[in-house]
Amino acid sequence: MNVEIITIGDELLIGQVVDTNSAWMAKELNAIGAEVLHITTVRDRKDEMIEAFNEAFTRVNVVLVTGGLGPTKDDITKQTLCDYFGTELVFSQEVYAHLENLLQRRGLQMNESNRAQALVPESCTVIQNAVGTAPIMWFEHDGRILVSMPGVPSEMKQVMTSDIIPRLSSFKQDAAVIVHHTCLVRNFAESVLSEFLDDFERNMPEDIKLAYLPTPGLIRLRLTARGTDEEKTKRNLDGQVKKLCGLLGNNILCNEDLSLTQIVGKFLKERGWMLSTAESCTGGNIAHQITKVPGSSAYFKGSVVAYSNEVKENVLGVSAADLTAFGAVSDPVVRQMCDGVCRLMNTECSVAVSGIAGPDGGTPDKPVGTVWIAAKCGDKIQTQLCSFASRRENNIARATQAALLLLVSLFVD
Amino acid sequence: MNVEIITIGDELLIGQVVDTNSAWMAKELNAIGAEVLHITTVRDRKDEMIEAFNEAFTRVNVVLVTGGLGPTKDDITKQTLCDYFGTELVFSQEVYAHLENLLQRRGLQMNESNRAQALVPESCTVIQNAVGTAPIMWFEHDGRILVSMPGVPSEMKQVMTSDIIPRLSSFKQDAAVIVHHTCLVRNFAESVLSEFLDDFERNMPEDIKLAYLPTPGLIRLRLTARGTDEEKTKRNLDGQVKKLCGLLGNNILCNEDLSLTQIVGKFLKERGWMLSTAESCTGGNIAHQITKVPGSSAYFKGSVVAYSNEVKENVLGVSAADLTAFGAVSDPVVRQMCDGVCRLMNTECSVAVSGIAGPDGGTPDKPVGTVWIAAKCGDKIQTQLCSFASRRENNIARATQAALLLLVSLFVD
Repeated sequence: MNVEIITIGDELLIGQVVDTNSAWMAKELNAIGAEVLHITTVRDRKDEMIEAFNEAFTRVNVVLVTGGLGPTKDDITKQTLCDYFGTELVFSQEVYAHLENLLQRRGLQMNESNRAQALVPESCTVIQNAVGTAPIMWFEHDGRILVSMPGVPSEMKQVMTSDIIPRLSSFKQDAAVIVHHTCLVRNFAESVLSEFLDDFERNMPEDIKLAYLPTPGLIRLRLTARGTDEEKTKRNLDGQVKKLCGLLGNNILCNEDLSLTQIVGKFLKERGWMLSTAESCTGGNIAHQITKVPGSSAYFKGSVVAYSNEVKENVLGVSAADLTAFGAVSDPVVRQMCDGVCRLMNTECSVAVSGIAGPDGGTPDKPVGTVWIAAKCGDKIQTQLCSFASRRENNIARATQAALLLLVSLFVD
Repeated sequence: MNVEIITIGDELLIGQVVDTNSAWMAKELNAIGAEVLHITTVRDRKDEMIEAFNEAFTRVNVVLVTGGLGPTKDDITKQTLCDYFGTELVFSQEVYAHLENLLQRRGLQMNESNRAQALVPESCTVIQNAVGTAPIMWFEHDGRILVSMPGVPSEMKQVMTSDIIPRLSSFKQDAAVIVHHTCLVRNFAESVLSEFLDDFERNMPEDIKLAYLPTPGLIRLRLTARGTDEEKTKRNLDGQVKKLCGLLGNNILCNEDLSLTQIVGKFLKERGWMLSTAESCTGGNIAHQITKVPGSSAYFKGSVVAYSNEVKENVLGVSAADLTAFGAVSDPVVRQMCDGVCRLMNTECSVAVSGIAGPDGGTPDKPVGTVWIAAKCGDKIQTQLCSFASRRENNIARATQAALLLLVSLFVD
């Protein structure tokens, strides 16, 4: 089954909001063997929406739409869908009752704007929105499906999981099977890995595809197999995976599609060790990335974000003399941050980062992007000097990634 | 000038990567008065790319393309562009020299894959990629422009800023002016605000548009004016902004398009106060959000992420008896976390959060999404119980937002 996603909203086209919905939806659709061919983002304009619907239906039979369903005047998706499907808005007692209930729980009164949300296109199947006020609309005409959902990510995710994915699964007629396998490869630049795998790629069966997703210091290699028989497709993929493992050996850090923080968690749990972090220029991002993983409290105790030297000294016990002699961005300071946070939080492992994220604060000696990182595991401690020379946001992200990679290398090397 | 963005890459359509490029590009384009009509994401397939180019050029004369330019075999954009524009790949000595230099600095050898990157379409203008190996291609045919850039965000941003935006500015012939004004409104639900502003909206001039971007506890209201005369368009917009301010008064938290963390920073700087945070379930995200803002070291000293009770007790000085009697997710504990981190880091202000992010850890008394937050400003301290009842990621994001809003309310109320 092929699907297209259309996201609606001026805020997406002026760059005020990043569309995170499409990627999430695509992942869920892939998991039931549905393939997303196109993602289109259009403004809150009737003619542009209709053009997008029409174009999508020339390619696929299932179109998922998000956005433009709020109670305010700039949201015109519902009326546009009525016009598109030649139907009209009718009052739904069921939706109204649900709205009343939801608003009551939030301590709000029903008003005109909300009341208008109980008007739904006559020809569609209405699916209640468990966590919001905009109803979900499922249109089915001549074997074609269009589903309109709110753009608020939590509302879209809720209804996708509870209703849309199950309905699409049962609707799906074809036997298409898509299987992915992802592994994480270290120690290679993308171009070097590509050359190294040249023969392997040339000899791959036609229904298997290899893709490279490079991140700094780590390349995500994705093998995708397509077929009609699930067992056979998986077997074919497994054969290629085995070949790849033989070629790359110990350079494969992980044979699952895990994030770096999930790998860190897996290794820590296997060893029964606890982690803490001491962060200056990453400002808490390492701790944040680690604690995004459910269950991270099993191996993560906490962090000291030491954004000022005063905190480095007083809370982490970094030597004032070393701060003066070497500066906050230095090998001795990140070592002492690592030691200090392990002591303070009673953990076996820690990572520490101190650097110049920018845009200000650089010097000729230590320009923006200069970052010292350290990782500690029991008695082993290792430090590394990085020069990212990028924008603030990217320097923070790369320092986070480099620190976690350094920790992982202490585990496996 | 109207523009469309096309992003290319299977990883975007299977949900492995979120497209953050488009939003960033759209913002930059808006700033020079260029409007983005469509964003389209397509797979690494020749026919699908060409269809997307064709469709885009039926609507606009400028198409910006990102992605599919890596040195590996799955990246076919360059060859596709050659076919589309009826030209062929030729060796560029200039690109080759640049590549050699770049690889050398990274300590890498030139190989076949890299060498192939020095092949560029004959009919395009090549723009050097200052921070990566894939050259940027600017095609111009019959008054139409197509620019192909790498999908790596840091590379795309670099060349957009240094070359593409300046070139497009000088190419732009029309006199279209787009002006936005955004203000942040608190104390309103979206539907209530919409009803409250009903008359205002009805009486708005036709060339001005109002949009609602709700986030929990804060609605971003955006007025957009379009015109041909810059002065006049701005004057029209200003008139509406004044009217809006008169209607909403003190409910307008801020009359600029600032993030909540930027507002926090602005208020702290105005008062000369320093901030620290004590975080349990938000796991460092508050500190991370605060330190994403350049210059935050002027008002932020640091954070203790106290993911375990041991850290709450030993580092922040939370009473062991209270932890036992009330639990870690309680009013007394977040108060003591606020006090503790202010003491430890010597700051006037702090926020503290303790809650159950999920998916595990909920109890009948305190289900997943139960979060206690506290904010402290000098002698004032305020706490709040929240029930987000959402997914882990959303609970973390909403707790972060709620804590910062509580702090801001201590400043302004």
